[in-house]
Amino acid sequence: MSPIDPAFIATSEALGDLALCHARLQADARFPWIVLIPRREAARELEDLAPGQRAALLDEVLAAGRAVRAVGEALGRPVGKLNVGQLGNVTPQLHVHVVGRRPDDAAWPGPVWGFGAAVAYPPEALARATAAARTALGL
Amino acid sequence: MSPIDPAFIATSEALGDLALCHARLQADARFPWIVLIPRREAARELEDLAPGQRAALLDEVLAAGRAVRAVGEALGRPVGKLNVGQLGNVTPQLHVHVVGRRPDDAAWPGPVWGFGAAVAYPPEALARATAAARTALGL
Repeated sequence: MSPIDPAFIATSEALGDLALCHARLQADARFPWIVLIPRREAARELEDLAPGQRAALLDEVLAAGRAVRAVGEALGRPVGKLNVGQLGNVTPQLHVHVVGRRPDDAAWPGPVWGFGAAVAYPPEALARATAAARTALGL
Repeated sequence: MSPIDPAFIATSEALGDLALCHARLQADARFPWIVLIPRREAARELEDLAPGQRAALLDEVLAAGRAVRAVGEALGRPVGKLNVGQLGNVTPQLHVHVVGRRPDDAAWPGPVWGFGAAVAYPPEALARATAAARTALGL
């Protein structure tokens, strides 16, 4: 198990470990949002993963999309569009964002990254969101 | 060959067709930037592609990353970080952005999507950029 950059710990809640990635729920009630962090500490770009690892990552991105949809349903705001991003300009450790979007969300139609300030989940909503995400991910 | 949304035609230059995707160079001299559009007109999300198509898309994202690095080299601004994004909030036809970033670029460290206005390539630079991208993509 490779260490996770502390920047992820500060901004998200652990969901659990998939075959390749550590999965976390972004602590931002504005968007149902999962961050996948491959447990390969040195990786910075997709090309740093072996082909089999890249295939696993793609499977986990699809699973995270289903989980983000489940979080949206659990919170009464069904997801209309998925956004997937692999940036790493701020936190270089390889990670992929999977975000559920709606035409009535705060940042629509722009990207969520760097948009305004995160809004904390009320505790009950956070519990519902993490439970829905874990169930969808089989965690 | 499925039709390409006119929004892509207006904002980018055709590079050619890969196994799955139509590849285009974004007409924005601020960033070396390739857009991959799977030739599956009805697809909106990654989950709309068959597993073999998703694997092909991932291979082409890797190839576009190499091509974006080649464009950066050809323009004398080597790429420091790749950004990959699949959004589709504005143009719903499934497409993936592969963007070369540098700490001295206009939008760093924020995302490029929705950032300011595109800057046209001078004709000679556009020719160099498209040639470098096509060579790297084997087109």
